[in-house]
Parts: sequence; structure tokens; C-alpha cells
Amino acid sequence: MPLFALSLLPMLAQSPQVSEPQYTQDGQLRKPENYREWIFLTSGLGMSYGAGASASNPRFDNVFVTPQAYRSFMTNGTWPDKTMFVLEVRSSSSEGSINKAGHFQSDITGIEVEVKDTARFPNKWAFFGFGTNAQTARPTPDNAGCQACHSKNGAVDNTFVQFYPTLIPVAKAKGTFRTTP
Amino acid sequence: MPLFALSLLPMLAQSPQVSEPQYTQDGQLRKPENYREWIFLTSGLGMSYGAGASASNPRFDNVFVTPQAYRSFMTNGTWPDKTMFVLEVRSSSSEGSINKAGHFQSDITGIEVEVKDTARFPNKWAFFGFGTNAQTARPTPDNAGCQACHSKNGAVDNTFVQFYPTLIPVAKAKGTFRTTP
Repeated sequence: MPLFALSLLPMLAQSPQVSEPQYTQDGQLRKPENYREWIFLTSGLGMSYGAGASASNPRFDNVFVTPQAYRSFMTNGTWPDKTMFVLEVRSSSSEGSINKAGHFQSDITGIEVEVKDTARFPNKWAFFGFGTNAQTARPTPDNAGCQACHSKNGAVDNTFVQFYPTLIPVAKAKGTFRTTP
Repeated sequence: MPLFALSLLPMLAQSPQVSEPQYTQDGQLRKPENYREWIFLTSGLGMSYGAGASASNPRFDNVFVTPQAYRSFMTNGTWPDKTMFVLEVRSSSSEGSINKAGHFQSDITGIEVEVKDTARFPNKWAFFGFGTNAQTARPTPDNAGCQACHSKNGAVDNTFVQFYPTLIPVAKAKGTFRTTP
């Protein structure tokens, strides 16, 4: 048995990382450190839900989800407990290096996280803003606003699957896609 | 030993997928099927290297790299043999669902792949265009043009690391970043 256990160690070290929400003792969410190795869902530029948003300094938003949640969604069209989304917001640049037109990504201006944790949050999901430097965060003060908008407008279970092009056909095939405004 | 071997099977089944270039017998590259599960590097909108590009119908380009190449780059600041990049080009949409401003991603309009395969290609790297439907592709007819531009302007080993914000500091720390025009 000792030999067996030792032989397994290299396998364990290479097994896929499971990313689940981690909290401090006082209930703050720890910033996920490895989210850039999660599954990328989409990127937008200058997206706004409010009218009259300025397009003079548009920002990119990159959306990542945990690999195990992604695999579950591809099979079932739903999000399992412990699903985490990261919205990484970056400033945009133009005319750098050999680029003559359009926009490319630059520095991070904010990181937001949406977590599904049914045992911890009354509405199953909660939202956290880490800004550029915070390592831990409490649910955002406007959590109720986030919740109301996601609940009302998210195509699948409080999430904006209508903006994730690779997930739309999966949710439609599984019958979990809800057409919202 | 039989017990040991059987016990290992579930671990092997979950070990990370290794994505290496696959070719047909006549030397065409097979389209990588699982590139959306690779590592996302960046996304741009309407990027053009030529002057006077139209911004009326800008396209997103999402860049992915194989996980093992990414891990190697994070350690060494260089790309190992068998590195693959996918450039996924998507049309952009506006004012859909609750979105009032900005651009979000829609259908795929083309898939391009850059491969490092030192035993196969005289210049180590080659470029392939799959359009929207092809499952296999020969090196692009303008391979020489791609090669010349990437070779001249890529910050690290024929690749545009200057546009990949998470890789720039790594390459600079490892001394592999070259400042280009």
C-alpha cells in the first residue's frame, strides 16, 4: 500500500484542478487566483445595459466559468452548485504596435464574481466585486439589484447565456433556454 | 499489480487532455475540435494591421493556445514544439436582449490556426485557414506573408505576445520579450 500511495502522487499532481468557492472565516469570498485557466465564454466591448452609455472609452469584459461547471452545462444545460463566473473587465487600447484600427485589451480595471452556493445564499447566487486589488470580498451592496436583473433577464438560471454563443445551442437543445427581453 | 492498474484507470481518464497537431496522411492539419477548452489569451474587436480598415462591421477575434504550451510559456517565456494557436473570428452584434450599447459576440466567420512543428515546417511555424466549415486545411497560400509579418513583428517567437496582456509580464521577466514596431 505505501508503494501504491506513492505511485499515485504524480497522477494527483496532474489531475484537473477543481475550482470551488473559498471563503474566509467571516464569510468573505476569496478571489479565485487561477480563473484565466478556466473556460472562456465570451468577450464584449463597451457593453452597457443602460441607455446613453459612452463609447468614448469602451471596456472589454471577458467571461470565464469553472471547468467543472462548464462540463456539467455541456451535458445538462444547467449550472451545478458551486459554479463560479468571473467577469474580468479590461481597458481597451488602439493603434499600438502594428495595429492600425480597432481595439485590443489592456490593463484590468475590475474583477467581478458570481457564485452559486445554494447552502450559503438565500437566492442561491451572490455577486462580489474585487476591484483591481482586493483579495477577498463580501457580497456587493447592490446584491439585490444584481439578483433582480439576473433573475429577470438571464436566459438560464440567473446567467446571461444569451450572450455566450457556444452555450446557446446547448441550452436550447436541453430545453433550459428561456427567451427574455 | 492488477488491482493497482485498475485503480489507476479513473485517474487516467481525468488527466488533462494533451492537444497536439493532428495531420491527414497527405499532410493537411485537422481542425482542433476542443480549442474552446484551451487557454484564452485575448480578444480584440475590429483589429486591423492595414490602414483605412472599416469599423462599420467590426469582428471579434478570440485567441486560444493549447494548455501545455501555455504552462510551458508561464515557466519559460517561450513556446514549445507542437504549440497551437487558434484565432476564432466572430461577427459582432449590438442592441440585443437587454444590451443597449457596445458589441457582443455572435456567429463564427472564420477559424485560423498557427502551429509550431519544427520537424515538419521549414520555418518551424505554419498557418492554416479553416473558414467556417473545413475540417482539414493545407498551409495557407499566403503562408510566406503570414510568416514574414509574424517573424518581423511578433514580440516572442513569431507570436503577437504584445497583444496578450497576461503574457507580456512573463515574457519580460524571462527576457524573451522583443520590442517591435
